Amino acid sequence: MKAIAFTGMPGAGKSEAVRVAEEMGIPVIKMGDVVRKEAKKRGLQLTDRNLGGLADEMRKKHGKGIWAEKCIEELEGKDIVVIDGIRNIEEVETFRKYIKNFILVAIHAAPRIRYDRIAKRGRSDDATDVEDMKMRERRELSWGLGDVIAMADIVIVNEGSLDEFRARIRKLLEENED
Amino acid sequence: MKAIAFTGMPGAGKSEAVRVAEEMGIPVIKMGDVVRKEAKKRGLQLTDRNLGGLADEMRKKHGKGIWAEKCIEELEGKDIVVIDGIRNIEEVETFRKYIKNFILVAIHAAPRIRYDRIAKRGRSDDATDVEDMKMRERRELSWGLGDVIAMADIVIVNEGSLDEFRARIRKLLEENED
Repeated sequence: MKAIAFTGMPGAGKSEAVRVAEEMGIPVIKMGDVVRKEAKKRGLQLTDRNLGGLADEMRKKHGKGIWAEKCIEELEGKDIVVIDGIRNIEEVETFRKYIKNFILVAIHAAPRIRYDRIAKRGRSDDATDVEDMKMRERRELSWGLGDVIAMADIVIVNEGSLDEFRARIRKLLEENED
Repeated sequence: MKAIAFTGMPGAGKSEAVRVAEEMGIPVIKMGDVVRKEAKKRGLQLTDRNLGGLADEMRKKHGKGIWAEKCIEELEGKDIVVIDGIRNIEEVETFRKYIKNFILVAIHAAPRIRYDRIAKRGRSDDATDVEDMKMRERRELSWGLGDVIAMADIVIVNEGSLDEFRARIRKLLEENED
């Protein structure tokens, strides 16, 4: 079994990398979905507040790697998967412990380029102005995203064209498919 | 005035990048030296304990960007400097605020490659075994090093030969010298 996890700051291109994987028919495990599944099992309403609360509660109770452990249960029987949504280094360590072929890929772009992109994109789940964006960035860093990026096995710089980036991701995934 | 700051995980190649700058005659400001200077001014013995204590005390009193502010005082009258030893994102923000041309360069290598290097190197100030190394890594991440890396303007991957890496750094510095 091989798992490739994409990580990166908001606006770096992580979602696009995940999209390429989906288009290639590679199963994608989103860690947020694992939280959502657990919430459903408990009969909770799927509000941001409930999901965030459950995620934190479980981390406090079972350690910061808990959602990675829950994730691993989803991987059984699959040859290759892409993992999206790693948030802290304990999760990285959990994946490395249980998955022999675990490759952590950080997508990087300079802050200036990320801010430009976000401003141009105006996607509903992205901050529409740079100040909001910086707050989101700070929040994700406070969760430990920077540590995850620093521990990447591969860094892919995404500052050129979208086609170039997609081709780079496709190549990486193809190399790891067999 | 232009400042280029090198950052990176232990074993990534940050010290080598700083060495290239020194060989080129570019002034290097080491943030640790700024703490040492302040300690001398106060008549403290330059032990790790005293230096660490002073550094923390000043951060608590004046904010996490304080050592960047002290650093900036050293930069006056210089065209280009290299900064070594940024530890947290508040320092990055302080530098960005006061230095118009501030370029944060992260040197990256995969953990596996960094551990191999450290094990082979056995330099006195590096951990000689991987477990010690991982502790050092954790400590630097706990200070906020991962956030600094995540916010880099440029990422240079250093996984090839030493000559290749030195040439890449020299090129980067030359491009920014004029």
